[in-house]
Amino acid sequence: MKGLKGACMFAQSGGPTSVINSSAAGVFTEALGQELITEVYGAAHGIKGVLDEVFYDISKEDPKEIELLKYTPSSALGSVRYKLKPVEKDDSDYKRLLEVFKKYNIRYFFYNGGNDSMDTCNKISKFINGSGWECNVIGVPKTIDNDLYGTDHCPGFASAAKYIATTLMEINLDAKVYDTGMVCIIEVMGRNAGWLTASAALAGYKGLGADLIYLPETAFDIDKFVEDVKEVCKKNNNKCIAVVSEGIKLADGRYVGEFTASSTDLFGHAQLGGVGAMLGNIVKEKTGIKVRAIELSLMQRCGAHLASKVDVEEAFNAGAEAVKAAVNGETDKMVVFQRDMSSGSYECKYKLMPLELAANTEKTVPTEWIVNNGTGLSDEFVKYALPLIQGDAKAPLEDGLPRFAKLKKVLAKK
Amino acid sequence: MKGLKGACMFAQSGGPTSVINSSAAGVFTEALGQELITEVYGAAHGIKGVLDEVFYDISKEDPKEIELLKYTPSSALGSVRYKLKPVEKDDSDYKRLLEVFKKYNIRYFFYNGGNDSMDTCNKISKFINGSGWECNVIGVPKTIDNDLYGTDHCPGFASAAKYIATTLMEINLDAKVYDTGMVCIIEVMGRNAGWLTASAALAGYKGLGADLIYLPETAFDIDKFVEDVKEVCKKNNNKCIAVVSEGIKLADGRYVGEFTASSTDLFGHAQLGGVGAMLGNIVKEKTGIKVRAIELSLMQRCGAHLASKVDVEEAFNAGAEAVKAAVNGETDKMVVFQRDMSSGSYECKYKLMPLELAANTEKTVPTEWIVNNGTGLSDEFVKYALPLIQGDAKAPLEDGLPRFAKLKKVLAKK
Repeated sequence: MKGLKGACMFAQSGGPTSVINSSAAGVFTEALGQELITEVYGAAHGIKGVLDEVFYDISKEDPKEIELLKYTPSSALGSVRYKLKPVEKDDSDYKRLLEVFKKYNIRYFFYNGGNDSMDTCNKISKFINGSGWECNVIGVPKTIDNDLYGTDHCPGFASAAKYIATTLMEINLDAKVYDTGMVCIIEVMGRNAGWLTASAALAGYKGLGADLIYLPETAFDIDKFVEDVKEVCKKNNNKCIAVVSEGIKLADGRYVGEFTASSTDLFGHAQLGGVGAMLGNIVKEKTGIKVRAIELSLMQRCGAHLASKVDVEEAFNAGAEAVKAAVNGETDKMVVFQRDMSSGSYECKYKLMPLELAANTEKTVPTEWIVNNGTGLSDEFVKYALPLIQGDAKAPLEDGLPRFAKLKKVLAKK
Repeated sequence: MKGLKGACMFAQSGGPTSVINSSAAGVFTEALGQELITEVYGAAHGIKGVLDEVFYDISKEDPKEIELLKYTPSSALGSVRYKLKPVEKDDSDYKRLLEVFKKYNIRYFFYNGGNDSMDTCNKISKFINGSGWECNVIGVPKTIDNDLYGTDHCPGFASAAKYIATTLMEINLDAKVYDTGMVCIIEVMGRNAGWLTASAALAGYKGLGADLIYLPETAFDIDKFVEDVKEVCKKNNNKCIAVVSEGIKLADGRYVGEFTASSTDLFGHAQLGGVGAMLGNIVKEKTGIKVRAIELSLMQRCGAHLASKVDVEEAFNAGAEAVKAAVNGETDKMVVFQRDMSSGSYECKYKLMPLELAANTEKTVPTEWIVNNGTGLSDEFVKYALPLIQGDAKAPLEDGLPRFAKLKKVLAKK
């Protein structure tokens, strides 16, 4: 059964990625072509924009700029980290959303994000559908962390993985250029799932990787870490590259990163500094070898100039598929990716899964893929990740620099 | 007068860049085709490889790999930071070099590096030429710092500048994605010259730059810095992006970075941490706004996937021109770039300059280009840098990752 004739609302939520806007382009392109969809709205700063009635009329945008969104990192509409309260405790936000949905005749709602965002999307879906207002709600997955349940992988992961692997290959060449020793510790994002950190193994597959890789999936022991580094250094002319997740945890479950916060500098100011810098200090003290701690920071999630073509296309399709599904009457679902190797090569199939399964479940790296006493990844990981990072897809150059999308952001008429 | 028939020796020195191997490719390609040059040697780890008689026979390399060197970051032969003593204090290294030169009939010597390396090259040139051994010595410039005297710009600078500008544009989009405040402080390399830090202005030219840029050329005042940040935050919804050079100095000449070294973390270990992290802590304390400190670290000098085509080509030509000049009888010179705008568009002319002029002189950013009370760059800088960052030139993809050069490194017969 088809959906109703009416407006659609799209919003972006959570941490941005290199390809989240490609999903936006997919939603916009598909929605603008659908007869049942009368208006296409993009909310400013996720669900906040809907609550505050701040959203843009996407039909006013230049199609060329919508195309450029595919190659423009970060959330073009603005993101948000706003957690809706459980409806049984406080339903005021939900009532407000329903009010806005009715006022603008919103019959289609698409929410683009990771675990937390799917939780939000799930809560909205349940409330709206329970209210009697007919509106099809579909979640569009997104997260560099790759930790959403029920999907082979998540849009955003592959581009970040490609950034990390490429950058690690370059750092590998740089870090061994002198004939003197150097320990290089590279910190990668991912609080509880080690997919991004694991992608260092892709650089290793090309012969320019890390000697040691530490994921949050296995308990981290600082003394063992120092011994691991020493052992590599002994074999390797005092050179060692270690990649650590920002989310590595001690055996008792505490984040190693917890111990960095209260240090101070000469001025007495609290030192920011991550896990990599802290481990670097320890290694320096215990070995006397020169150490360089590198944090890939925001670059790994916004480095769209290194986006994977597969990722850009799949992110776009995830958005387009969400619209098609909603128009065809689907609701309360999230788009998921299914890997199909039946043709002998990698293909991605787009499916739907109940939203509640996606909400707040974390998918971590299978522990059987973690080898070498917790310091490496098996070939299974490389086999899993390699098809996802294929091809280049980046913004055209203008003055030698990327020409990113520029949206007009015309506010919808109230 | 032509040079003599004999072998040539090439060596790489100092910090690597994205295009130093492109100069190597230029030297090798040109030298392998010169009738007067009987053998082409590449020294392992700069002048150390010559002293230790560890160098490779480049004729044994696959021409395809030499071509790939153009897109392969870091010093493929290995680099070194080894300063020759003044000859009047200790001439043992010089005598040893002469011995090696005679043993292998080295009639051409090419040294690729920055200020310190040109000092080394100059000393060697003077000693060898004074010894009666006929050998033409030509320096090939290289430094991301862009601080060599007598040349319009240096190979390596433009690719690092392009990396910084592109990355800043991406960070700019990411850092303003939430509707909450964030101060982002990005630390860029360059101890005494601010060229690299200034390249943040290229991102500004495209509308996605920094609010504040601090070069080492002007005295840095921490209180003023905090006020500058506060002022931007006040106008800008508590959002501010500041780019600082690692080499910023207080009015009394001390590096601001000096004050970060003796801080300690919870374990009592000395904290590494750069200038950006330290300033971040101060801003956080003084404003209460969330701060993210980002260090572009090694990535800015080895990010060959973002190399400038102009830079790759000019670096190659610098190497080739050095060989041509030496074969044509030139010696004791460094290749320099002259900007020619007479055709209305940018062209690079290759010239020679006496080596002693290049040795240990630093060229800094003209202070008249530094505007906005020491927080910005004038259009003059953009006009200067923009032609240098044009075009892409990167390694072909293999498995979705760069295929960098793989040298056989066959040791020269003793």
